[in-house]
Formats: sequence, structure tokens, C-alpha cells
Amino acid sequence: MTTDSTWEDFAARMRELRHLDSMSSLMGWDEQTMMPPKAAPGRASVSGTLAAIEHERMASTEYGAVIDKLEQESLGETRRSMVELAKRKRDQAVKMPARLVRDLAETSSRSQAAWIEARSKDDFSIFQPLLQRMFDLKAEQAEALGYEKEPYDAHLDLFERGATAEMLRPMFDSVAAGLTPVIEAARAHGDDDRVLPRGPYEVQAVLAYCNDLLERLGYDMEAGRLDVSAHPFTSEIGPGDVRVTTRVDTGNVQEAILGTLHEMGHALYHMGLRDDWAETTIGESVSLGVDESQSRLWENQVGRSLAFWEGELPKAKQSLRPWTDTTPEDVYRAVNRVRPSLVRVKADEVTYPLHVAVRFELELAISRGEIPVADLPTAWNESMKRHLGIEPPSDADGVLQDVHWSLGYLGYFPTYLIGSVYSAALFEAATQALGGADKVDAQLRAGEFAPLLGWLRTNVHEVGSLKLPAEVIAGATGKRAAQEIDTAPFVSYIRNKYGPLYGM
Amino acid sequence: MTTDSTWEDFAARMRELRHLDSMSSLMGWDEQTMMPPKAAPGRASVSGTLAAIEHERMASTEYGAVIDKLEQESLGETRRSMVELAKRKRDQAVKMPARLVRDLAETSSRSQAAWIEARSKDDFSIFQPLLQRMFDLKAEQAEALGYEKEPYDAHLDLFERGATAEMLRPMFDSVAAGLTPVIEAARAHGDDDRVLPRGPYEVQAVLAYCNDLLERLGYDMEAGRLDVSAHPFTSEIGPGDVRVTTRVDTGNVQEAILGTLHEMGHALYHMGLRDDWAETTIGESVSLGVDESQSRLWENQVGRSLAFWEGELPKAKQSLRPWTDTTPEDVYRAVNRVRPSLVRVKADEVTYPLHVAVRFELELAISRGEIPVADLPTAWNESMKRHLGIEPPSDADGVLQDVHWSLGYLGYFPTYLIGSVYSAALFEAATQALGGADKVDAQLRAGEFAPLLGWLRTNVHEVGSLKLPAEVIAGATGKRAAQEIDTAPFVSYIRNKYGPLYGM
Repeated sequence: MTTDSTWEDFAARMRELRHLDSMSSLMGWDEQTMMPPKAAPGRASVSGTLAAIEHERMASTEYGAVIDKLEQESLGETRRSMVELAKRKRDQAVKMPARLVRDLAETSSRSQAAWIEARSKDDFSIFQPLLQRMFDLKAEQAEALGYEKEPYDAHLDLFERGATAEMLRPMFDSVAAGLTPVIEAARAHGDDDRVLPRGPYEVQAVLAYCNDLLERLGYDMEAGRLDVSAHPFTSEIGPGDVRVTTRVDTGNVQEAILGTLHEMGHALYHMGLRDDWAETTIGESVSLGVDESQSRLWENQVGRSLAFWEGELPKAKQSLRPWTDTTPEDVYRAVNRVRPSLVRVKADEVTYPLHVAVRFELELAISRGEIPVADLPTAWNESMKRHLGIEPPSDADGVLQDVHWSLGYLGYFPTYLIGSVYSAALFEAATQALGGADKVDAQLRAGEFAPLLGWLRTNVHEVGSLKLPAEVIAGATGKRAAQEIDTAPFVSYIRNKYGPLYGM
Repeated sequence: MTTDSTWEDFAARMRELRHLDSMSSLMGWDEQTMMPPKAAPGRASVSGTLAAIEHERMASTEYGAVIDKLEQESLGETRRSMVELAKRKRDQAVKMPARLVRDLAETSSRSQAAWIEARSKDDFSIFQPLLQRMFDLKAEQAEALGYEKEPYDAHLDLFERGATAEMLRPMFDSVAAGLTPVIEAARAHGDDDRVLPRGPYEVQAVLAYCNDLLERLGYDMEAGRLDVSAHPFTSEIGPGDVRVTTRVDTGNVQEAILGTLHEMGHALYHMGLRDDWAETTIGESVSLGVDESQSRLWENQVGRSLAFWEGELPKAKQSLRPWTDTTPEDVYRAVNRVRPSLVRVKADEVTYPLHVAVRFELELAISRGEIPVADLPTAWNESMKRHLGIEPPSDADGVLQDVHWSLGYLGYFPTYLIGSVYSAALFEAATQALGGADKVDAQLRAGEFAPLLGWLRTNVHEVGSLKLPAEVIAGATGKRAAQEIDTAPFVSYIRNKYGPLYGM
């Protein structure tokens, strides 16, 4: 075979794999937004079949042979990256027995359904057997994939290439050390008046406003859509098709708005990936941490800034009647109110990292076999007490609050903190590139989001997976990639913003 | 291999094929209800990949070998039918080159998008090149599949097993002969006052009413959902997941209501298929004609009856404000108003068969190469003039009105008339079994739909594809399956109902 025909063969296989991903994304989106309840068991079987086909294609000896052949040829940087990433993914797939792949996919659908029921009935025992099964399968997966120091590293690596428990521990520690004084200052200061009007907000009006917001900030409504789901998420179903969801509480509008900005951040990243790489391995989001840096940046650095609300408030008032007498400062103080709370997705950005720390700690213990699944509710509550000083009165607001474990996302939560840390570093670099903080504030105030989005497109989105996650961030921030994640920009962002807010 | 393991292998392959069907259905449903416009080209490629995988699995030599082996064993009726149907489908697949399968799937997505644009701009030239491409591919397909008398028979057989142009011609002729006097009587009689209030109807109120209707008539809302699409359709995505759509015109509520009953009829059939056959070849709708008999029966024999509206009207009035002064007789006369019109989906049940005749005639000519695609708009208008005495003022209401050709559904339209003819025969048999016309009328008036649905479940739905389409109908109506389709029950149903309405 000549190089050209080998490359064509390789390209066709990459394309087919991306297409199978697309089907899988569509099924996942449908399950969480549209699917009728009685479809769940049947859908689980179909997901299992699709996963088995994906695995068969990925692990095929023909694909392996093509990759091996191309590895020995001299290719440009772009093609070399495509081949390297293909090899990494194929190696992971080959290590996974087909039976395990199918079991994971089927258990994921079933256990998600059980989680929904368990949470709505506040009854962990409904979820427990399927969660046990899921963790057993994940333990098997870690052994199959292999790791250097401990099983948890195998899980982490799936979501954030190269991350290890050893590397993340200092990040958690230094962030906790940097943030604790802020939380204590907030506790001492008192801020009971810093709340947005309680509504009631009309669901349709809130959704209409969220749609406006998406459109004005740069989300392409012709290439996506906003729906409602129990747990908000973003789904790239394919080129020209990146969908987001939110949830609307008639008594609390903040969650819908900031949640929409969060998912929009993910979506803008996926919409900004290069079209000409769409059917290759490098045309994907590089890691969950980098993906999360985009959602955090739009949610926090933009959506929780005073400048943004100075420009946005008059528009928001057109849809949100209860906001008639609200000022930009009211919104700013409310969305930046620091208060240890029970539910991660409702947490402020200062206590949020501690919610992640609770999960990091428990996941590590689970993967080491130190906590039986039956004890998770108790262990959860103890960890919440230790990190945040509060204890959940119910499992629904405790161990049952997140969908992730039901889907088998062990090692996923730490990427939320990585994202926060990266978002601060990226915003710092963008601010400098765009002419300084005053200039960027003026743009946000004027509703000009194109310069910031443009900078992110060029420096992050269009790089795709051409480089390693840490290299993407290093390239964008003009620094060298290091072994440890630098938490300084994040801690100083928090201190600079919350110091004045809480008289530190 | 022992018989047991051969059977297990066969069962696993049937199951996988049904699962691939499920993915394909979900993508199709999404395309027509939810998908953002810019996703179309990418989705077309993904559809092509899925079609190629389905074809690969269906045509695999291993599947062929298992089928051949099982054909020689002595199996019970159920298993024998599964194997026979598998063989028929596989033979069709094997005859189709993989390239043709992929081209058909990709062209289908693209040409559907072109059709949507062409119709909205009333410009056939936008659609013409893709329709040409589609018909060329369909001609190739007919040659690949083979036929005895003419290419069109190959198309027909895909939708209605065993149907041929020669067999359908007498059905079209005898129905036209039987119905023409009714149409002439209606034309002479005058019925300008037989209309429902023009509205305006609120879209949300109409949809809420359609949802009520579905639920009360026996559609399981936990195993399906109602959405809006340009062309109403039913999609069986899997067990426990049969979705319907409708369209709502604020000035004309009749179409939304009867359209919902129509799609519900399809959905009740699919919901009534046996669960334990769900992952086999016989757990499917047996043919489009039988499927259509179910939609027609609920739309026409139920939804266009006086008894139904006598019971239904008070409930309808709760949602449909413009109906305040409407009587059951008003609705009955309006939904049974006979008037040659331009658009098939808006046609009454007497002129409807002539719309089908127009398409049957044109499709036959296309498949014989007697009409160039460029001449279709003119040929359409001429045929409308001949059959219905009216000529479309625009292609949007003429040759561009149906989605079907864009999807490659050549040979599909005749099944609409087969469905009407079968629906009358089935309703006649059900009426007799349930104690006569007065008894059934009393049930419809009382909103008791379970007896009729129960009869259809037992006699049609639960038979699945265990028998041939004509055998299913023969079994249900207690007659012997014959070569020709008996149109007498349909013609007498129309004459008995419309005679009194138009003073014949």
C-alpha cells in the first residue's frame, strides 16, 4: 500500500469512529431531554450494542496495522498528532474486553434510571446495587487499562490525560489554603441581604431570556438548541450541532442564568473547534479540564462580573419582571455571595472547589477499596462536615445529588477544579492581550463579547487536540508547560474579587 | 455447532439489527423535530455510516450461513417465520452494493433538506438535481433487487410484500369507479356552510388537547411523546418508545386533530406489537398497508364518525374556545366535507384515493423512464386536473407538497390506498365481533375505546409479522387471502356514510 492509500484508509476509520460517537451523543442527549420513561430498558440495550460496535472498530487489527504503519512514516505535525491520538485511544480500547465495554454501557443506562428514582424518592438503597455494580466494573476497567501508582490514576487519565492523584493533591491543598480565609471572612461578615428577588419567575420567560443570552454572547442558534434537563449539560452531536440544556427553578433564577452561561462556555469551545478537523481525532475537545475552563470562564469571569451586569441588566429586566428594582450591584453581590451550601451545582465559586474536594477524597477511597458502597452516604456527610462545615439533612441533597457516578464518571470531578484554575489563568492572559482590565470591562459593559471569544477561538478552541492539555494552556498563557498545575492566578483572582466584597 | 448455539447466534444477530434500526429511527425523528439546521450536512454523513454498518451486518456471510443452516432444521412456526423474514431481508441487502446503500442514505438526508428549502421558496429547481439523483439511485436499486414484470414492482415489494403494479391497477380502478358518484353528488349538492370555526386557535391549547386525546384513546404517554414537525409522522424508536408528531395551523384545527388520530393509529399498532418479539424480525409492523389501515381506522372510522364526536365534543370544548357554539353534527359534517383539493394530507377521505392515484401514475411513469424529472411539475398538474379536476397554482402546493420522494420512498404512496381499503374491512369485522354497529357507536359515544383497541391488538397488532400482510388481514376479517385486494367493504363504507350526507 502506498502512503496515500494508507492515509485514506486511516482517515476513513477515524471518520467512522467520530460518526459512531455522534450517534452515541445523540442517544445520550435524547435520554436526558426527550426520551419517554418506558424506553429506558430498551435504550440501554441499544447503547450496549453501539458501544460494542465502537469497541470492535476501535480495536480492530486492521486499524492497529494502519496506525503502526503510519507511525513509522514521516508525517507533518498535524497528521502525526492524529495518529498519536488514534494510537492512544486504540490502546485503551484494546485493553478493554468487549464484555466489559458492553456491561459498562448497559449499566450506565440502568444505573442512571435508578439514580433518578433514588434521588426523587430520597432513597439511596434504590441506587446502591447499581452503583456497586458500576464501581465494580470501573475497578475492573482500571486493572485492564493499567496504572503506575494507583487505580485512581487510570480513571483520571481517561478524562485528563496524564493527571494523577499525586499531581492533583497539591492543587487541592493550595486552593483550599488560598480560599479558606475568604470563606471565613464571608462567614464573619454576614451577607443575608445579598439575594436576588425570589420570583416567582415564569419558566417560559426565563427560557426566552436564556435563549437571548446565548444568542447575544456568540452561541449560534442555527447550530444548536437549548432544552431543559434534570442535570444541565452540553452535547456535541456533530459539526453544526452543539446542544445545551439548563434547568429552571421558579423561585431562583440565578441557577438557570449562570448554568446557561456555563454550558454556553462548553458549547462555544465545541463550536469553535476546526471544521476541517471534525472527522479526525484532533478535532475534539482536548480534555475535560480545558473544556471546563471555557465553561467556568463564561460563567464566572464574565457572568459573575460587575461590568457584565452593568451592560446586561436592562436587557434582563425585559424578560424578568421580578427584577424591576434590581441594580447591577445587587446582581453582582448576589451572584458572588459566599456561603457553604449542600449542593455543588448551586455553590458559589469560592466554596465550589471544596465540593470537588469531597468527591476527590471519596473517589480516591472508593478506588482504593477503603469505603464500601453502603457506607457512602455516611462518608459523604462526614466529608461535607469536614470541608464545608455543614451536613446534608437528606441523601437527595447529599450523596445522591450528582448524576456522574451513575454514568461511571469516576475521576471526572477533579477536572472541575482544574477547569476553574485554568479559567483564571486564561482570563488573565486574555485580559492582557486585549488591552488590560479596564478595556475588557468596557467591552463586557458594552455587550461586546467578540474580542474575548475571538481570543479564546484562536488560542484555545482552534488548537483542538493538536497538543496536550497542559500545552494548550501553556501556549495560550505564554508560559511553559510544567508538571504541577499553577494555582496562583486562580487564588489571586478570588482574593482580588472577594476581598473587597467581604471587607478583607 | 448445536442447534441451540446456532439459534443463539441467529438471535444475537437479529437483535443487533433491530438495535441499529433503533439508532436510525432516532436520528430520523431528531432530524424532523429537533435538529438545528446547520447540522444537516454532518448528519447526512453519519446516516451514511450507519446505513453502511447495517448493510455490512445484514449482508455478512456469517449471518447468511446461520440462516441457511436454520432453514434446514425443523422449527416451530414462530421461529420459522423469523428465519424466513431474516432471509428475505438479507437477500435484499446482499443484492444491494454497499456503495448504493451509502449513496441512498446520504442523498436522502441532503435531498430532504433541499426539499424543505424548495417548498418554502416554492422553487422546484432547488430540489430537482437531488430528486434526479434520488430517482437515478432508485432505478439502480430496482435493477439490483430484480423484478418480474417492471422496475416499479421492485419498489412496491419493499413496502408491501408481494404487491405489483398489475395487482394494484384494479384496486385503483374499482375504488375510483365506486367513489366518483359520491364526489359528483357532493359537487352538485353544495356544502359551503360545512366548516369548523376558523379560529384563531392557540397552538399550545391545540397541542394540549391533542395530548389529552392521545391519552384517552389508549396511547401510552409514558412510552411516547407528541411533537411538532413539518410533515406529521410516527416513529418507533424501540420498545417503550413510539413517538408521534403533528402540525398545528392556528386557522384550521381539523388537520391537527385528525392528524394526531392518524399518527396515533400507527403508534397504537407499534405499541401493541409483542414485547417478547421486540428483538426479532417478526416483532415489526408487517407492511405499510397494514400499518396504514390502523392509522386510517382511528382517523376515519373513529375520528370522522358522529358517535365519536357526540362523546368527544364536550371535552374538546374545554380546550378549543372557538368551538363554543359548535354541535357534534357541525363537526361531523365539516370533517366529512367532500371537496377536491390540492394537498393530499388535507384531503377528505373520498377524494384522498385520487391523490394517491396521481402519485401511483407518476411513479409508474418515472420508473419506466417516461417522464424526465424536469417535467414533473407539469405532469403533476396535468394529472391533478385529470383525476381531481383542479390544478395547483404553485409547485409548493403541487409536486413539492410531499416529503416522500426526497427520502426515496418510491412505491410507498399506493400503501395509503391499501390502508384505506383494509381499514374498512377491519372495522367491518371488528363491528361484527363487538356486537354490531349500534353497540360500537355507543362505545365510541361513551369514550370507551378499549374494546375496539383490544380487538385490534388481538387480531392485528399481536400477530406482528408472523404472517404475510394479506394473511393478517384475512385472518382478522375471517376471510381467505386472495390475489386481488377486495375493495367492496371500503366502497360500501363510503357510500353508506356519504350517501345520506349528500342526499344520494
